Amino acid sequence: MIAGTSAQEQAQTFITGKQYSSAMFRLFIIFLLTYQVLLSPVPNNGVFQYIDAHQDEFIQRLKDWVAIESDSSDPSKRDLVNKMMEMTKDYILKLGGSVEMAEIGEQELSSGEKIPLPPVILAELGNDKSKPTVCFYGHMDVQPAKQTDGWLTEPYTVVEKDDNLYGRGTSDDKGQVLALLHALESVNVMGLPVNVKLAIEGMEEVGSDGLEKLVEDKKDTFFSNVDYIVVTDTPWLSKKPGITYGARGNCYFFIEVQGARRDLHSGGFGGTVHEAMSDLIYLLNTLADGKGRILVPGIYEAVAPVGENETDLYKNLEFSLEEMQADTGVKQFLHDTKEDLLMHRWRYPSLSIHGIEGAFSGTGTKTVIPAKVIGKFSIRQVPNMEPSVVNKQVTDYLEAKFSERKSPNKIKVTMVIGAKPWLADMNEPQYLAARRAVKRVFNLEADMIRAGGTIPIAKTLEDVLGKSVMLLGIGGPDDAPHGQNEKISKYNYIEGTKLYASYLQELSSTSS
Amino acid sequence: MIAGTSAQEQAQTFITGKQYSSAMFRLFIIFLLTYQVLLSPVPNNGVFQYIDAHQDEFIQRLKDWVAIESDSSDPSKRDLVNKMMEMTKDYILKLGGSVEMAEIGEQELSSGEKIPLPPVILAELGNDKSKPTVCFYGHMDVQPAKQTDGWLTEPYTVVEKDDNLYGRGTSDDKGQVLALLHALESVNVMGLPVNVKLAIEGMEEVGSDGLEKLVEDKKDTFFSNVDYIVVTDTPWLSKKPGITYGARGNCYFFIEVQGARRDLHSGGFGGTVHEAMSDLIYLLNTLADGKGRILVPGIYEAVAPVGENETDLYKNLEFSLEEMQADTGVKQFLHDTKEDLLMHRWRYPSLSIHGIEGAFSGTGTKTVIPAKVIGKFSIRQVPNMEPSVVNKQVTDYLEAKFSERKSPNKIKVTMVIGAKPWLADMNEPQYLAARRAVKRVFNLEADMIRAGGTIPIAKTLEDVLGKSVMLLGIGGPDDAPHGQNEKISKYNYIEGTKLYASYLQELSSTSS
Repeated sequence: MIAGTSAQEQAQTFITGKQYSSAMFRLFIIFLLTYQVLLSPVPNNGVFQYIDAHQDEFIQRLKDWVAIESDSSDPSKRDLVNKMMEMTKDYILKLGGSVEMAEIGEQELSSGEKIPLPPVILAELGNDKSKPTVCFYGHMDVQPAKQTDGWLTEPYTVVEKDDNLYGRGTSDDKGQVLALLHALESVNVMGLPVNVKLAIEGMEEVGSDGLEKLVEDKKDTFFSNVDYIVVTDTPWLSKKPGITYGARGNCYFFIEVQGARRDLHSGGFGGTVHEAMSDLIYLLNTLADGKGRILVPGIYEAVAPVGENETDLYKNLEFSLEEMQADTGVKQFLHDTKEDLLMHRWRYPSLSIHGIEGAFSGTGTKTVIPAKVIGKFSIRQVPNMEPSVVNKQVTDYLEAKFSERKSPNKIKVTMVIGAKPWLADMNEPQYLAARRAVKRVFNLEADMIRAGGTIPIAKTLEDVLGKSVMLLGIGGPDDAPHGQNEKISKYNYIEGTKLYASYLQELSSTSS
Repeated sequence: MIAGTSAQEQAQTFITGKQYSSAMFRLFIIFLLTYQVLLSPVPNNGVFQYIDAHQDEFIQRLKDWVAIESDSSDPSKRDLVNKMMEMTKDYILKLGGSVEMAEIGEQELSSGEKIPLPPVILAELGNDKSKPTVCFYGHMDVQPAKQTDGWLTEPYTVVEKDDNLYGRGTSDDKGQVLALLHALESVNVMGLPVNVKLAIEGMEEVGSDGLEKLVEDKKDTFFSNVDYIVVTDTPWLSKKPGITYGARGNCYFFIEVQGARRDLHSGGFGGTVHEAMSDLIYLLNTLADGKGRILVPGIYEAVAPVGENETDLYKNLEFSLEEMQADTGVKQFLHDTKEDLLMHRWRYPSLSIHGIEGAFSGTGTKTVIPAKVIGKFSIRQVPNMEPSVVNKQVTDYLEAKFSERKSPNKIKVTMVIGAKPWLADMNEPQYLAARRAVKRVFNLEADMIRAGGTIPIAKTLEDVLGKSVMLLGIGGPDDAPHGQNEKISKYNYIEGTKLYASYLQELSSTSS
């Protein structure tokens, strides 16, 4: 296969270098490519052999990286996020890449204090003008995790069990970025078939602060020659590989209710004060009904109507409600059919209440009347919702509802994240390359899917750079990326590495 | 005053020993007592001098005791509660008392694990059958406290500022128990005028597990000769000393809502599942209206009607709504007059929502759909409410409300604390002794007050032992016993020590 790859590269140089002179020559090249794609036994491929041979090393690196608690939501852990960025840089340098640690300014904490945002890694491997350039995006920060949240193992120590690797970030997104980097290492043995750029950040889990501005600033420099953008931060819909062409956005809200100046004892003050917690519960209860329907007026007005053949798209997807039940333990979903459920996951907005800051949250009993409580909820965004409009709709609604209650307490509604939804054309050239790569590694047709979650960078990159964006992830559908016991299967981690490697190879046959 | 006290003791011995033989002798004794009470310059008293001279030492001991984080709500801190009990025992032994560390069984944690309850201190100082015996009750455990809850100082390091001593437990209840023990030390210099017993526990803040059974078991032994019971765990209503003759009870509830088996990501699952948090918010919102009125049917039926002259009692109390506003920062209370507000604090039930366990409670953002959440609220009990009845009313109501919602999630309502209210006759002999003691130390008439909070032991002791119970505390009205920045003023701490000393002396003139 090394010889075969060389032939392909040679042909590619001819094509992109426009050195061919006749239709005959083109036919010869097409013959060579056809021979490789159709007749090479899969996975009889030097790259695949390299990946299989280095599995243990790849898993060990994941363990080392998960051990760094790079929780971006907790400002006290900022040093660990920075350390994680440095480790990533060091490994890219080892791969032969050049790396810029781009500074992106400061984060203002709720206290008013300002701390530096972690730098964004901008890296480059290969700079051959005759080859297309693909830029991969990923992130090194993780969601918060504590064993006391209900983890069966310590979240920052990777534990291998039943062919899975458990730990915070194994799937979201350290495992996926590492699979890509390992693919680069593996393909690089024979020379990269395309130019590769990497943009890796450390604030994804809290809304990618500073990243949009960086992309704008670097539009005409680092990003100027990028042809394709691939986001490596997404799961498949099932055990079958999926390619993601859309993602919901997210508007994350805080409702702060301020009652007394300090916490009060419910014995001494219960029955005498308007309790902030009681007001907050009332407000949170006005947001959605028992069927998950959002009650904020106007929210559904901007939602794109269902297209003529749109429902058909959902019918062919590999997806089982029973497996989702087995995975989650949920006996009854809000919707009864695969099509209905997936549409509500992907193309309709949803509202979730995440928690309350400032109230008693420990085990046991505490007879406190909390003075200031902050309710946290978010509304997932779909085309054609606009976060600024949603912000106004939600704020106006909550203020009106609070005014009806006639409480002397004070409220403050803040939209702390306002990430837009994203939707691409699934027939763009890099999507076709990725579909061929799936076929090559797994001998299957890829599921074309959307993400219920938010990849704000997808929308940002598309809007700012005007280039094709694709989400090619390797997470499993049951990885629990933001929950307890996050994991990635060894299968997805290692075969996913092959998928990225094959994508690089397939992309080299796509004209830029 | 030493001579005066001796004369009083001599007279008392005669009275209680029934050695007097004529009306003349009684008159002589009354003369002696009258001389002491009316003519002795206050506080020209050896005991008071002793207390003033030992202030620094008394404050240092409070610092040492507050440093032990004896938080009974957190099973992982049980060793510290036990350590606190040991330190208390050692000091009582130093005072010349005899101490039994009474074992009271085990606590079953929510995990099913069982751990030993901290022992209860049963101590005795003096055993003169001719003198009355008073048993003081206090507790050495504290409410949870973390600096990140909003404390200006580290909660377990006493900080002196503006003549206040800040720290968790300074007022509730380490400071009050220490004032009593220091009073015993001070009075003991001249011999105790009464027999003293002490019952000091380590589980008060979580419902006094095991104590009721202990009192029942020891009814005919340790407690058999007790004449009066004083609880040293209560604040004054204002800067003026108050004596407490009633306390509300408390029924503390958990509503557990179980949704999925594990936390879910709001991107991948928002819009597809019935969220546990949404169900819990709905349930919590059904409990009370915006004016604090409890909506659970039947709750108000058992509340004792307001007596004919009851409102008059409230008119004479020293209490200022303006000071309460200044203390709490609350601009508008649920009630506009002193009488109305105090009645709702003391003689009507109230409902407070304390917090939620299992949801996101940190700073920042987390896009989680929590799998299992436990809402925590409590209803303060007043005569003639019965916790078992309230338990049924609340459980039936919440289950009916949940059934209306038609959610597939599971709920479990549990009453984890069921403490009855307590109300005494304020004209019992020891109340009169305490009123004389207030007059002696402060030259003021005591405010006769009730506690909005719960002193379950008051009810238990009264019910089981059938003896007079009184709450004689020394906490200030703004000590924030369960909130941030708990404190006791040095004035209350030191003059309160004198109050306990004087009470012991005054009680010796009350026949048992």
